[in-house]
Parts: sequence; structure tokens; C-alpha cells
Amino acid sequence: MTTISATDVAVGTELPEQVFSVTRADLVRYAGASGDFNPIHWNERVATDVGLPDVIAHGMFTMALAARVVTAWVGDPGAVVDYQVRFSRPVVVPDDDAGAEVTVRGTVGALLEDDRVRVDLTVTSGGEKVLSLARATVRLPR
Amino acid sequence: MTTISATDVAVGTELPEQVFSVTRADLVRYAGASGDFNPIHWNERVATDVGLPDVIAHGMFTMALAARVVTAWVGDPGAVVDYQVRFSRPVVVPDDDAGAEVTVRGTVGALLEDDRVRVDLTVTSGGEKVLSLARATVRLPR
Repeated sequence: MTTISATDVAVGTELPEQVFSVTRADLVRYAGASGDFNPIHWNERVATDVGLPDVIAHGMFTMALAARVVTAWVGDPGAVVDYQVRFSRPVVVPDDDAGAEVTVRGTVGALLEDDRVRVDLTVTSGGEKVLSLARATVRLPR
Repeated sequence: MTTISATDVAVGTELPEQVFSVTRADLVRYAGASGDFNPIHWNERVATDVGLPDVIAHGMFTMALAARVVTAWVGDPGAVVDYQVRFSRPVVVPDDDAGAEVTVRGTVGALLEDDRVRVDLTVTSGGEKVLSLARATVRLPR
């Protein structure tokens, strides 16, 4: 259900922040769901052998988490008409129950034609930006 | 395609032996396919914390491998009308590309009514029996 309308938002409107925990178990599930079984996402021996600090999250999984902040705000996943990110740093997932913390903040960055807005996302883990130029275009109801 | 007929077999007929390699990657895939995400099947920290020597294979995965020796022999998975095993020891899967070796041998143990035969399976890994009382009932064409 859409809860935000085009008349409610302005440049600078902030979306509710969300903090996600990403565990190794999430990555094993995402491997099966996505078909991406690259062992850098579940095996630290392989990950460190190829120069990574540890197991890292699938980039598309992080991208999907960030999108949830937008879809939770607008209430309707179908309202997202465009979504792009660059993967700037990996989300490093330690081998414990807490996993990695991924914090997603969103701000309305521009008002576009036809009741569309651009949401600019800031996605961090361990104090570093893990996505850059993360932007969603959302069509809001009147 | 069924390649064995009821007139070809006797008590003591041996099925072609198969040796399977079971890797951690197989278990991550099987977790997704089966929905069994228990970390003892993909995380050695958790596995050793609960007293296991290392990551172990899903029992049902081992059971499925053993069944392949029967279905490869008879040529038709639908010919297997009953299949039972007991899980006697875990298949321990080291963190390397070779993984665990699972050897499956089968012998016709009994001729039953209606062109059915009982196949007795011997399934070993690391020199130990990992399944016991592993028996498949197969209906053979005339």
C-alpha cells in the first residue's frame, strides 16, 4: 500500500533509515536463490586466497537491501521505475551470528516530471560507503 | 531407459560401483535445493562447536548419491519402489576442492515377487560405513 504521495515530499525529505544485519547464513541462502555460488561469498579460505579480507556479500544482495528502504517508504515495489548503483566496496561478512551491519539512508534528491522523484541512497558498512551513486527513481501517487 | 531385466539378475549380482566427490560447494547447493540451511553443513566453526569433526554432508544428500547407483543400473528412477537407509556416520567434508570421497557398492540381496529385487548398498567414506541397512527395492522389467 502506498503511503507517500507526491505532495508530501520535497528535495531533502529523508526516508526512514534501516540497519540490516548480513550473516553468512544470509549469503548461503542468497547463493541458492540467485544461483551465484561463487565461494568468495561463503568460504573464507577462497576469499582470502583471492585477496579479499574475508567472505563478502553478493553485490546484488546489498543492492536489494538498499532498495528495501525505498520500497518500505513508498509502500509499493512497483513504484520504483529505475534503480542504479555502483559497487564501490565489498560488504565484509565475519563468521559470527551478528554478521555485517549495513546501514541505508535515503534522501529525496530531486523532483522530476510526472510525480517522479529521485531518491539518493547512502549505504555504509563498517563506516565505509559500500555503494556509490545509488539512486532510485520512484513514481509517487498524487 | 531400463537396461536390466528380471531374467538377468541373481542373488549376488553386483551393480557397477560409483565413487562420488562431495565438496563444500555441493553442500551449499544442496542447502538451497533442499531448504536445509543448518550451518553444520557449510560452516566448520559451528560444526566443530557442536562436537562434529568438521562440516558434514546432509544425510539426505548422501542417501541420494547412493540411490544413483541403483537408478544408473536399472536405467529408470521410477523402477525404485522402496528405499530406506540408516545414517550411521556423517560424511565429513574437508575445505578443499577434492572434498570427501563417497564410494557406493550395490549387490542384489534377494529376489522378491513380481520381478522385484532387493539391492543392498554399501556406502563408505574415509574407510567407514556412512549408511547402514541401505536397501532399495527395484521392480525390473521382464
